[in-house]
Amino acid sequence: MKRKITLLLITFCCTIGLGQNNTVDKKVVELLSKMTLEEKIGQMTQITLGTFEEKGKSGLSLTKLNEGIQKYYIGSVLNTPNRYSPDTKEWRQIMTTIQNANSKNRLPIPVLYGIDAIHGASYTMGATLFPQQIGMAATFNTEIVKKGASISAYETRASSIPWVFSPDLDLPRNPAWSRIWESFGEDTYLTSRMGEAMVNGFEGGNIGSKYQVASCMKHFIGYGSTTTGKDRTPSIIPERVLRQFDLPIYEAAIKAGAKSVMISSGEINGTPVHASKYLITDVLKKELGFKGVVVTDWKDIIYLHTRHKVAETNREAVKIAVLAGVDVSMVPEDYSFCIDLLDLVNKGEIPMSRIDDAVSRILKLKIELNLFEGTVADAKQYPKFGSAEFINEAYNAATESITLLKNKNAVLPLNKNEKILVTGPTANSMVALNGGWTYTWQGDKTDELVPDKLTILEAIQQKAGASNVLYTKGADLALENEDEINKAVALAKDASKIILCLGEKNYTETPGDINNLYISASQVKLALALAKLNKPIVLVLNEGRPRLISDFEDKMDAVVQCYLPGNEGGRALAAILYGEVNPSGRLPYNYPRFPNSLEKYNRKYTESLADNEQNNDAKYQRSYNPQFEFGTGLSYTTFTYSNLQLDKTEINSEDEITVSVAVTNSGKVAGKESVLLYLSDLYASITPEVKALKRFEKIALEPNETKTVQFTLNQKDLQFVNNDLKWISEKGTFKVQIGNQTKQFVLK
Amino acid sequence: MKRKITLLLITFCCTIGLGQNNTVDKKVVELLSKMTLEEKIGQMTQITLGTFEEKGKSGLSLTKLNEGIQKYYIGSVLNTPNRYSPDTKEWRQIMTTIQNANSKNRLPIPVLYGIDAIHGASYTMGATLFPQQIGMAATFNTEIVKKGASISAYETRASSIPWVFSPDLDLPRNPAWSRIWESFGEDTYLTSRMGEAMVNGFEGGNIGSKYQVASCMKHFIGYGSTTTGKDRTPSIIPERVLRQFDLPIYEAAIKAGAKSVMISSGEINGTPVHASKYLITDVLKKELGFKGVVVTDWKDIIYLHTRHKVAETNREAVKIAVLAGVDVSMVPEDYSFCIDLLDLVNKGEIPMSRIDDAVSRILKLKIELNLFEGTVADAKQYPKFGSAEFINEAYNAATESITLLKNKNAVLPLNKNEKILVTGPTANSMVALNGGWTYTWQGDKTDELVPDKLTILEAIQQKAGASNVLYTKGADLALENEDEINKAVALAKDASKIILCLGEKNYTETPGDINNLYISASQVKLALALAKLNKPIVLVLNEGRPRLISDFEDKMDAVVQCYLPGNEGGRALAAILYGEVNPSGRLPYNYPRFPNSLEKYNRKYTESLADNEQNNDAKYQRSYNPQFEFGTGLSYTTFTYSNLQLDKTEINSEDEITVSVAVTNSGKVAGKESVLLYLSDLYASITPEVKALKRFEKIALEPNETKTVQFTLNQKDLQFVNNDLKWISEKGTFKVQIGNQTKQFVLK
Repeated sequence: MKRKITLLLITFCCTIGLGQNNTVDKKVVELLSKMTLEEKIGQMTQITLGTFEEKGKSGLSLTKLNEGIQKYYIGSVLNTPNRYSPDTKEWRQIMTTIQNANSKNRLPIPVLYGIDAIHGASYTMGATLFPQQIGMAATFNTEIVKKGASISAYETRASSIPWVFSPDLDLPRNPAWSRIWESFGEDTYLTSRMGEAMVNGFEGGNIGSKYQVASCMKHFIGYGSTTTGKDRTPSIIPERVLRQFDLPIYEAAIKAGAKSVMISSGEINGTPVHASKYLITDVLKKELGFKGVVVTDWKDIIYLHTRHKVAETNREAVKIAVLAGVDVSMVPEDYSFCIDLLDLVNKGEIPMSRIDDAVSRILKLKIELNLFEGTVADAKQYPKFGSAEFINEAYNAATESITLLKNKNAVLPLNKNEKILVTGPTANSMVALNGGWTYTWQGDKTDELVPDKLTILEAIQQKAGASNVLYTKGADLALENEDEINKAVALAKDASKIILCLGEKNYTETPGDINNLYISASQVKLALALAKLNKPIVLVLNEGRPRLISDFEDKMDAVVQCYLPGNEGGRALAAILYGEVNPSGRLPYNYPRFPNSLEKYNRKYTESLADNEQNNDAKYQRSYNPQFEFGTGLSYTTFTYSNLQLDKTEINSEDEITVSVAVTNSGKVAGKESVLLYLSDLYASITPEVKALKRFEKIALEPNETKTVQFTLNQKDLQFVNNDLKWISEKGTFKVQIGNQTKQFVLK
Repeated sequence: MKRKITLLLITFCCTIGLGQNNTVDKKVVELLSKMTLEEKIGQMTQITLGTFEEKGKSGLSLTKLNEGIQKYYIGSVLNTPNRYSPDTKEWRQIMTTIQNANSKNRLPIPVLYGIDAIHGASYTMGATLFPQQIGMAATFNTEIVKKGASISAYETRASSIPWVFSPDLDLPRNPAWSRIWESFGEDTYLTSRMGEAMVNGFEGGNIGSKYQVASCMKHFIGYGSTTTGKDRTPSIIPERVLRQFDLPIYEAAIKAGAKSVMISSGEINGTPVHASKYLITDVLKKELGFKGVVVTDWKDIIYLHTRHKVAETNREAVKIAVLAGVDVSMVPEDYSFCIDLLDLVNKGEIPMSRIDDAVSRILKLKIELNLFEGTVADAKQYPKFGSAEFINEAYNAATESITLLKNKNAVLPLNKNEKILVTGPTANSMVALNGGWTYTWQGDKTDELVPDKLTILEAIQQKAGASNVLYTKGADLALENEDEINKAVALAKDASKIILCLGEKNYTETPGDINNLYISASQVKLALALAKLNKPIVLVLNEGRPRLISDFEDKMDAVVQCYLPGNEGGRALAAILYGEVNPSGRLPYNYPRFPNSLEKYNRKYTESLADNEQNNDAKYQRSYNPQFEFGTGLSYTTFTYSNLQLDKTEINSEDEITVSVAVTNSGKVAGKESVLLYLSDLYASITPEVKALKRFEKIALEPNETKTVQFTLNQKDLQFVNNDLKWISEKGTFKVQIGNQTKQFVLK
């Protein structure tokens, strides 16, 4: 019997990469050998905190909590109490209560707490809130992203929470999707570098530290690619495409050390990812060598039965998901998972080796997080929580994210002495600046919860003096209101310029689904009414996804994209509008012009026929014509590119190639510039992209200063995935493009 | 040497299914053995007729023609003379000229002429023009479709042309695509049955008959599925999906005997179909056993180099396509294909066996078509060309296609004594009724070419008397014109009802690309202006694809979809509007409500969350909410469904199941009803569709008449394609739905 156990241990140790003679692994093996099946299954169970509350009462119900912890031995908990976000003190109380309940267990394995800390510790009152991920992508600055994640880690641990459901590594293919703003945009390379930076910031190479947390890559895989754009609807992604564009992002994050992964709630090509042994076990765990914990998304095992209809019963759904490779079930509102899984193992339908693999991964994470040393934070050790230093980092991130898309006749920057009208439904709203996942799931209470933070209006008033700023809301986000438009038009007559702040309501997930990408009609009407005045208009976009503005964009003098810049976003925008900060963000997606023309920047040649391809018999619309292209981002200065150099014009299949370019600040003010290198494979057996981002670097330049930026391209950069699902390169000509400079080289 | 030839012959004979001891095969073998390589390559070459014309001169240039036929031995010709469509007499002259040039060759193998006869012999003046395919699909009447194709075959042969590039078997996945109207709509089953009927109508089981033609399935495969909706842009279709939804359509048409196939101009998952040996040779020729001719689409081998960029040179493109399995290159404007292919074979880069396979298929088709007996039609043998009998069939098809989508307060049918206003840009246009591929590629000259055919306005005037019909155009299709709207509004005051005819310009292929699915703004303005009058409005849609009308649809009392009903469509519509014909068409696609909500009727359950799936914290928009669903089609009578019966409640894996239902005409007028059977697999390992059409039958019922309709479902109907690319069924419960009746059965 003992021998059999040893053999089993060897088997799962190999599977999850234990067996190196270290103390963590030894502790896992030792713990596991002491556990009953019920205790093991409990480790695989995650429950939402609200389950332990009684309706209408605040605080945890000890009866309910004890049921979870002492009857079902649950291994992890997520989410906030119902209806509010605690401060660090309240979080400590919650963790203490949970720890106390757990301490009465025979084997008091610490409960692992996970939280949606999406742009800072966004479920903790008083925490520092950064721009949402799409804005972080727009900085094209990996250092800022890493720093932001490390501050988020610090403040999450200060909340006694060691595990964040972040970063989001989705690669959205439909700009109408409600979670575009939680992603790093449409490019694989940019998302990979940013994801890596965020994992590094969260984990810092040592999640045992009291200032680091375990990260969670999400949502493996293909979640952001729904065909219709609606959240949690089917994705169609052939495996070749998945391997070329989606998988490398996870590969990079795993290499950076990411400790856990959350599975996509969607289906790919008819198979829900939670039901895919191929994707979870064969690709993620085996091929990519992922040794961490695989957690489901909200209720997703149950949904295999009730929504996806791949399981005739809930029990069947549990079987499918656990055999597919799921380690933790975010059940999260009942104990059906424990009951069904126990029955499945007892009846031999799920082997113990699968359970031991899952539990070993979970125990390993808990040990690495040092949870056995206690799960409640010591307040004194987190003096920087919500500090000016941290807030300043969030402000810097916001300033580097904000993207100037248009600036006709240098209407920006503004002069502090001119009288301006600020108007629009997002002008005076902390809800709009932050979006979803802010204190609540949908982020609907931010205005009442952070009264001291500055909206766009308040920040502009502070910057230019209240007497220089006229304001009226002008429009609701949804309802049309002629009176408000008239008020704005009347006020505008006294202003020399108009700051028009448009955008979207707060949302995430399914509540954010839309069926029309155009910005709301009530806002279009306001824009068109103001445009008739022939006064300069600065359009400030404060939105999670690119809502179409082609009905009036030509009448706007400047366009500034704020994305969802967070609590410091109003101040950051004001500093840019008045020229105290020179904008340096770049668009991390193609901003479409029309609802049925959603091409990506790295389109195929057939998607952008040149004029010489026009047919003699019938001229037709240019098919590729976004409102603003990926990478667009203006500055108050000008940058001149020159002297693009390649160190070789021919390379062989082992060579690297070094590319350099000189960038000069040829304008009058200091500024930052993200230098973007695109590569084009001119001919390939899989139709090549027109161009693909391969490198970027952000530099700062004083007026008249020149810096030479150098990049090294390697063989992998020349490769694509062929129909045999292999990464290959093919001989032929490649084109390098940086700014307006291009050069070619040949792979022999 | 002789033995080697014999072996080679045996090899290619087996490949293309020759070798049965019949005279056709013998003749192929014999002919082939006499041919030089140059002559063989000529057979594989197709040139457009305009290449033989001299700029600015009418008639063929004998010099140019002789170059093609006597220097390059070209095997086939397509298209019309530049800039006009001939009548049957002119076609005979053209064919005589070509036949004469060919007769001087050493081996005068007849030239095969192919034509885009899309809705009748649409490139022959005086031919009978039917509704475009989307309307033929809406009839849900396979007999009408077959009859239409047989008339088209008759009139095409009367034009001395033996080969049509029809039917279109595309399965469009984006309703913005410019060729939706050339397809049978969004459903695989409907398209399969209609495609089969059309092949039968064209070929009649004997293409040697002087009244039948060879059909051409197009565009193999995935052409109609572009992601962005733009023509000839990339499609993303995982093979599992391709096999379940696209391939069965071709399988059915091949089984029906289709003699040729045209390859898709697009790419699937990065591989242009013209470059896919897997799809053309392995799947189409080997797996599906297709023995006919594979022809490229326009210039598509050249485009492998210039657009798709999978070939570095044109020569490389020829190599890729011919090795992939292409038999005929629609070059079509030069002889580059001949020159490159000759060089490739001479240098051993393409084996002679591939050439012999291609040429054998072509020769076989020519022999089967009886072209060796002459290619010029005898006028006397085609007395029915353009006859009243044929025109009446086109009229019947149009009446059965027109689809009544809404009829509030029975505003339809109209009374001949009431005064009505007819208005809208499509009200008085033969161009709008016919669309593209009508006398010219884009169908832009129809009004001048068929002055005797009735527009919607003229047909209504004829029906109700000119004095009862007011008319003004009301709006342009594109340009806004306030005066015209005012004119329409003023006229409407004298009318009791308004017939508002909206739609689209004529188009096909890339010139039909759009970036916004909404119907044009100029038309929306007219509709809204008229709606303010509070008079009943009948919206008549005359459009190739479902342009969005949600901005004003709620203000319309009736909605009638005409599609592109052809030359007899005006009369058919008038008969329906005045109740002389009871409408019986059904929508062959989901008509979307919003531009970013393009779900199909056979969606997955995750695409139509039920109300009980709404989250407590945030209510959200219903995701599945088309303007009109697939299958919608009202009548002037009512049909009542009752007594749905299954002959078994449990079946095993070999059983068929018989379904019957009683349909009663419970209204006051006779009518036709298409009875649609939908099947739902309640749970499956590949997420099941909510429902899928499995059978349909159109019946005619007098008032109070009841008919029992019976369908037999077989095992294939219960199957889907799994991840191993196999068709399988799984045990469990299935639901049958006909009308408002449902019943379940269990597969044990």
